[in-house]
Amino acid sequence: MTVSSLSKPLVLALDAMGGDFAPDIVVRGAAKAREKYPETKFIFFGDETKVSPLLASYPGLKAHCELRHTPEIVTSDMKPSHALRQGRNSSMRLAINAVASGEASCVVSAGNTGALMAMAKFVLKTLPGIDRPAIATLIPTQRGETVMLDLGANIECDAENLVQFALMGAIFCHTILGRTSPTIGLLNIGTEELKGHDEVRIAASILRDRPMPGKLIGFVEGNDITAGTADVIVTDGFSGNIALKSIEGTARLISHFLRQAFESSLLAKIGYLLARGTLLRLKKRVDPRRYNGAMFLGLQGVCVKSHGGTDAEGFANAIGVAHDLVVHGFNEKIAQELATQYGLNNAHEHGEAL
Amino acid sequence: MTVSSLSKPLVLALDAMGGDFAPDIVVRGAAKAREKYPETKFIFFGDETKVSPLLASYPGLKAHCELRHTPEIVTSDMKPSHALRQGRNSSMRLAINAVASGEASCVVSAGNTGALMAMAKFVLKTLPGIDRPAIATLIPTQRGETVMLDLGANIECDAENLVQFALMGAIFCHTILGRTSPTIGLLNIGTEELKGHDEVRIAASILRDRPMPGKLIGFVEGNDITAGTADVIVTDGFSGNIALKSIEGTARLISHFLRQAFESSLLAKIGYLLARGTLLRLKKRVDPRRYNGAMFLGLQGVCVKSHGGTDAEGFANAIGVAHDLVVHGFNEKIAQELATQYGLNNAHEHGEAL
Repeated sequence: MTVSSLSKPLVLALDAMGGDFAPDIVVRGAAKAREKYPETKFIFFGDETKVSPLLASYPGLKAHCELRHTPEIVTSDMKPSHALRQGRNSSMRLAINAVASGEASCVVSAGNTGALMAMAKFVLKTLPGIDRPAIATLIPTQRGETVMLDLGANIECDAENLVQFALMGAIFCHTILGRTSPTIGLLNIGTEELKGHDEVRIAASILRDRPMPGKLIGFVEGNDITAGTADVIVTDGFSGNIALKSIEGTARLISHFLRQAFESSLLAKIGYLLARGTLLRLKKRVDPRRYNGAMFLGLQGVCVKSHGGTDAEGFANAIGVAHDLVVHGFNEKIAQELATQYGLNNAHEHGEAL
Repeated sequence: MTVSSLSKPLVLALDAMGGDFAPDIVVRGAAKAREKYPETKFIFFGDETKVSPLLASYPGLKAHCELRHTPEIVTSDMKPSHALRQGRNSSMRLAINAVASGEASCVVSAGNTGALMAMAKFVLKTLPGIDRPAIATLIPTQRGETVMLDLGANIECDAENLVQFALMGAIFCHTILGRTSPTIGLLNIGTEELKGHDEVRIAASILRDRPMPGKLIGFVEGNDITAGTADVIVTDGFSGNIALKSIEGTARLISHFLRQAFESSLLAKIGYLLARGTLLRLKKRVDPRRYNGAMFLGLQGVCVKSHGGTDAEGFANAIGVAHDLVVHGFNEKIAQELATQYGLNNAHEHGEAL
């Protein structure tokens, strides 16, 4: 059962203890997000002694949230299997459970990615017709934004996994970005049909024949991601993670070079001062915080992962991503599409808690 | 037998017909390179009717080169296996043959990468102790330059391949960049020991124990490439190609955004004019042409691949890369290191031409 929030105030479950600067950024992020989405309510899961004093500073937020105490946390270096066995009362796990029980419409955590995926998959289960969930995000490109998945949930993927990622990515692109027939590109190391390993070539041949809520344009290469060649970029979690982090690293490198350049002479300094407003707008445009909030697609419930090192602004954006997925009924649309394509129904029940 | 050029003028074999703008950029690139390396001589392989008129414009170059006519070419969309069978008289093949026969010390081509690798491997053979050649390049980072390999020669690699890439990368870094004990990072999707697929984890455990001309620092992630976390980044050809092209694409995206920003207001335009000198120096610093020239490491002969779409400046840089590999005796050093490590000798002979 996927949770629809349209008939009641939207309730978000927040892992208050996940992330390098938790619980501070979680509480402040929620306060920021509530300004934008005043219909939301929050359930914070975490250590009362730490979260409660923070909430005291935000009376507007406090009036629309609930705090559930747990002293247990999932640490950033915990193995997913360990977290699954030992973290049954952790803030992360209890927040996920709240989605499974229907108390909350979605969960947001800045904690350990592997543990969050393992727990979310175990508790919420995958959508019928989806074998493996994938991590997706939006990437800024020369032609707007592109959806890329998988970003690290699945190190090795077979052709059918890639096909399912394409389907989920296309529905996401249609539902959230409003593009009616999104173009889909399979990430490869050449655009010729013979290039790449078996999985990616078989996936291409399946996608060419199967009716899809999007259109395969074929293979794309690493540089096509930020060129915006396709609305949806599909790849395995190993390559996807490396591509995403290579993009982030390059943005940091160039920003480092630019800073050096603008500090290198008096003329350059004055030039910078004059162009400052524009450059700050550009900085804001490519601000990684703006793109914070990776979605776990393919689960029976909305789960969003924030960068571990983000600040309150970034965490608020991750909440916004979760909010949008719920109000646009993203999961319901995937289930519908799968039912149309494969005659599947959405009768799976949430798994029992461990 | 690897070719040493130290006792005679350095002779480079050039595939005059490879690349989007060949033979124009090849001839002009060679003319540029000769200004920097006046001791070099060139053998051009290609269509006399096209190359000869171009050479006529560069009498200084013409006096130090030879033109060998062949009407056959390897096209950019030709399958490597097809090129290998059908391209025995192609400009690319004849240029490689010149290295095998000892006439030239190295070969440079801007043609079809897959065909070049297949032919070079077939004709020149791999160095003893190296199972598969790899494509390597230099990448600009926050701390100077980093060597990355493989960039696309091997879609799937086993642990031993990765170990050999690490060895070749470290020797390259030591020989060409002068770093005495280069740090080596294995590209992965997390820095924890449990992360990644089997191959990368087994490679790490081998590299930890094996004496190497460099030092394994462990796993690195996509963002570490341009951060300069390691002197040598080792990965399989699929991930490496995607990482490299993601980096190139991001640099293009940001440069596109910057252009837009500087054109967006009068103040920004004036700011740009003031900072122009500095920004142009920065542009030069990250100019992809400066990093043109991917090296095929692990062959019994020096083979350098230029970007297909490069201009004369970029092609001249690729010639420079080949030049440096030869004069620093890079292949001899790998052979020496392998002999020391494994008791191998360098007695392989070049393969016969097909």
